Amino acid sequence: MKKLKSVIQDGDYILIVYDEKRRWIVQVKTGQAFHTNKGIIEFDKLIGKPYGIQLPSSKHKNFLIFPPTPADFLFKTVRKTQIIYPKDASFILVNTGIGPGSRVVEAGTGSGGLCSILAYYIRPNGKVYTYEIRAEFLKKAQKTLQRLGLEEFVEFKNKDILEGIEEKNVDSVILDLAIPWDIVPLARDALKPGGILASFSPTIDQIQKTTTALKKNNFGDIQVFELLLRSWQISSKNKAIQATRPHTQMIGHTGFMIFARKIEINK
Amino acid sequence: MKKLKSVIQDGDYILIVYDEKRRWIVQVKTGQAFHTNKGIIEFDKLIGKPYGIQLPSSKHKNFLIFPPTPADFLFKTVRKTQIIYPKDASFILVNTGIGPGSRVVEAGTGSGGLCSILAYYIRPNGKVYTYEIRAEFLKKAQKTLQRLGLEEFVEFKNKDILEGIEEKNVDSVILDLAIPWDIVPLARDALKPGGILASFSPTIDQIQKTTTALKKNNFGDIQVFELLLRSWQISSKNKAIQATRPHTQMIGHTGFMIFARKIEINK
Amino acid sequence: MKKLKSVIQDGDYILIVYDEKRRWIVQVKTGQAFHTNKGIIEFDKLIGKPYGIQLPSSKHKNFLIFPPTPADFLFKTVRKTQIIYPKDASFILVNTGIGPGSRVVEAGTGSGGLCSILAYYIRPNGKVYTYEIRAEFLKKAQKTLQRLGLEEFVEFKNKDILEGIEEKNVDSVILDLAIPWDIVPLARDALKPGGILASFSPTIDQIQKTTTALKKNNFGDIQVFELLLRSWQISSKNKAIQATRPHTQMIGHTGFMIFARKIEINK
Amino acid sequence: MKKLKSVIQDGDYILIVYDEKRRWIVQVKTGQAFHTNKGIIEFDKLIGKPYGIQLPSSKHKNFLIFPPTPADFLFKTVRKTQIIYPKDASFILVNTGIGPGSRVVEAGTGSGGLCSILAYYIRPNGKVYTYEIRAEFLKKAQKTLQRLGLEEFVEFKNKDILEGIEEKNVDSVILDLAIPWDIVPLARDALKPGGILASFSPTIDQIQKTTTALKKNNFGDIQVFELLLRSWQISSKNKAIQATRPHTQMIGHTGFMIFARKIEINK
Repeated sequence: MKKLKSVIQDGDYILIVYDEKRRWIVQVKTGQAFHTNKGIIEFDKLIGKPYGIQLPSSKHKNFLIFPPTPADFLFKTVRKTQIIYPKDASFILVNTGIGPGSRVVEAGTGSGGLCSILAYYIRPNGKVYTYEIRAEFLKKAQKTLQRLGLEEFVEFKNKDILEGIEEKNVDSVILDLAIPWDIVPLARDALKPGGILASFSPTIDQIQKTTTALKKNNFGDIQVFELLLRSWQISSKNKAIQATRPHTQMIGHTGFMIFARKIEINK
Repeated sequence: MKKLKSVIQDGDYILIVYDEKRRWIVQVKTGQAFHTNKGIIEFDKLIGKPYGIQLPSSKHKNFLIFPPTPADFLFKTVRKTQIIYPKDASFILVNTGIGPGSRVVEAGTGSGGLCSILAYYIRPNGKVYTYEIRAEFLKKAQKTLQRLGLEEFVEFKNKDILEGIEEKNVDSVILDLAIPWDIVPLARDALKPGGILASFSPTIDQIQKTTTALKKNNFGDIQVFELLLRSWQISSKNKAIQATRPHTQMIGHTGFMIFARKIEINK
Repeated sequence: MKKLKSVIQDGDYILIVYDEKRRWIVQVKTGQAFHTNKGIIEFDKLIGKPYGIQLPSSKHKNFLIFPPTPADFLFKTVRKTQIIYPKDASFILVNTGIGPGSRVVEAGTGSGGLCSILAYYIRPNGKVYTYEIRAEFLKKAQKTLQRLGLEEFVEFKNKDILEGIEEKNVDSVILDLAIPWDIVPLARDALKPGGILASFSPTIDQIQKTTTALKKNNFGDIQVFELLLRSWQISSKNKAIQATRPHTQMIGHTGFMIFARKIEINK
Repeated sequence: MKKLKSVIQDGDYILIVYDEKRRWIVQVKTGQAFHTNKGIIEFDKLIGKPYGIQLPSSKHKNFLIFPPTPADFLFKTVRKTQIIYPKDASFILVNTGIGPGSRVVEAGTGSGGLCSILAYYIRPNGKVYTYEIRAEFLKKAQKTLQRLGLEEFVEFKNKDILEGIEEKNVDSVILDLAIPWDIVPLARDALKPGGILASFSPTIDQIQKTTTALKKNNFGDIQVFELLLRSWQISSKNKAIQATRPHTQMIGHTGFMIFARKIEINK
């Protein structure tokens, strides 16, 4: 992802916000327009304007134009497969300590959502090695990373990770696939001493099997978490309307996260 | 934070893990020892050993030794004032898009917990400008950042942020203090077009007042969230003992987070 | 609600279950049928059969037929206005101690959902006095209670409760309306010594105002709660399919509940 | 539980409230007193006074005196074994439709907490048949029910429920023991057509096994839930102090609840 710019330019990916639910990421192209059921937004009216502008659509509806963050991208561009949510991606990021300079193995790539976040944060001198057995997914992910300007920080590997992890002494291994337990011994070999493995799974059955594999393969400090995100509607103080409350609808479950650290085997 | 090392050295800060609750961060010093009620750990037995080793204490209890992550530091070194939890810090980080190269204003510094996370992630070419009116807190935070090797990425400002934010065109402003609403107009001036403000507050009253201030001061896309973290105990599959369940005790509330983006005022 | 019967009879209200989401309460009528998009169920095939039978529809889909509980009714017959959920209704019931023999004032009646639960549980010698200013709602609620066979346990009052509560020395007052704080002084007069008031409100603003009114009007032991219900999908142990997980969609908020007890004023 | 009385009498069980955490249920005895670290309360000062009075202790601390509800008893008198919480007990009550007149089988009795709630609500013409293999627990539970005046509504059975359920055609079977799956076939025989079984278990492993047993034994409409209770601290509106927020500490898990209905086997 390139540095956030102050002025909207041809070729920029922009975040268009109508409200909390209706928001899109699109690429600005001279002479073209973006169509919503709230009206049309002509890109030529945007080019050269500062980010943050409010733009009325052809239907006189008000839209806001912002530079997208990686979390915005995560939400808006990678919806076709099961995605990892920003709440989970960010918790994995900080709990593993993955940051600028980290070398990380990820499997599988999926549509590249988590990969984007990792690539954004290991810049400028780290690397994400991402394994994906399905070529069409890897290609799609590669495009997403390109669009974000993050391609150079990722090595895309169209391989079955079960055939082996080629990297050694990596800081972290991140698993987001159906059978993480089979990869645990390989992850152990790839990790540096004390290195951290994180695995994301939707079901408790998967978490149980992964925990068993982690114990067998000399991982310690094993911890399992889930995160519940609640969004709130806030009424302004002293206003007549009383509306401060959580929203009715909520995502009640995305997945469970395991964290574990590689232990040295005492001889 | 310096690169994670494979071998424990004199002067390293290490994470000592007994179990999920009993864990400490201490500095390794030749000839010295760490005392717990589970026995004594002599540092000389650690120096030169790989991270991840299991070490029996003088009471024959097993301890694990790991390199600490920034999240570990957040939890273990900055307990004296109210701290921001890793779940909240990481969500703020990713939702604002703060990353390598970002320029960020933070107020107040407190004991430096959130500041540490920000400094770790804006490396190597970003900067955190952190405001704290209480000199003794700022000094303590500075020491924490020093210990983490992150001092050079932070400018410590012993000032009342209400007297003005000196930085301009910053990517984000992060507020973690009692009266965020008063700082909103100043934050607006400091932010670049489309820049993101995030504010963390324990009470709904604070969130209501901050929301009102954000609306008045031309911020848009205002969103309020809270995150609930649940930790699980996992039994291995097919084992006699049945123990897969969330832990009984839980932190039911830390705080609410507001995110908002600076809007250009149409003339 | 009449005693649960073992055999389905003409005139019975029955619960038809296709799956967790698709379920209906209908009245059995000789010669008639119930139409769903999963096929038609002819009532004549049900009459005289035991409850719990599995019945294939005209489209060979399997339906289950059960006697509805009051909670089923709450969910399936009173959807048009905002309803109180079984999780909240049951918590209010048990926390107030409303049970067989209790005399309870309720306002407002709404479509009669909470009223049905209260009437079911104060049987056979208690009474619910329910106030509703809107005649059409009261009429609809009365029909719901009739259908449940609970009408005799309720006194329906088409009155503005702000004009006064006619009952004295009642065990509990239950408020489920937009401005509970105005009714607090009247509730105090109606309650017996130590009697319990419970109020249900969707917003925090309402809860704050009600709390203030309760303190002013000599209520004590004021407590505020919210309940989050999570439903789970369970895979059978040792099965290939791994599916034990909370459902993705969840109701993240229904409302907050206040409980308070009447205090004697010391003279 | 006897009818709530207006005036405190010798022999009454009373709820003494200091604050949300410090609350006790004790029996009033002429000439005696209750000692707390906030001072002494002499019962003679209470007898003949109305419920709801505020009483200063010997240390001039203010206490409130109320008639206890069954939920109060659940919380305050049955702490020694694992107890079922009011939130779960009430949800089971209403979701099974157990109410005045219901005939219910319960196993195990434990210390009688859930049994008390059931007995209170099946009055005056229902019955709870409660099975407990441990004689000392049954005796303790019997005393609790006696104290509540609910003994006549319960049949206490010092038997291993695995040896058979003697009752037939009961409305509901409620399981709160370590191995509910073994009791499922017996529960099926005891239930009336369409009757409802509810089971409470702390672990997911238990829930998986019980679900498997329910499917094998022709139960349908199987649903699994958990309830999270959050308590709030509310600041009065327009006050200087800002304090509206959930409490920090929370019970993150008590148990999971299964509900299932008996299906007729088609021949």
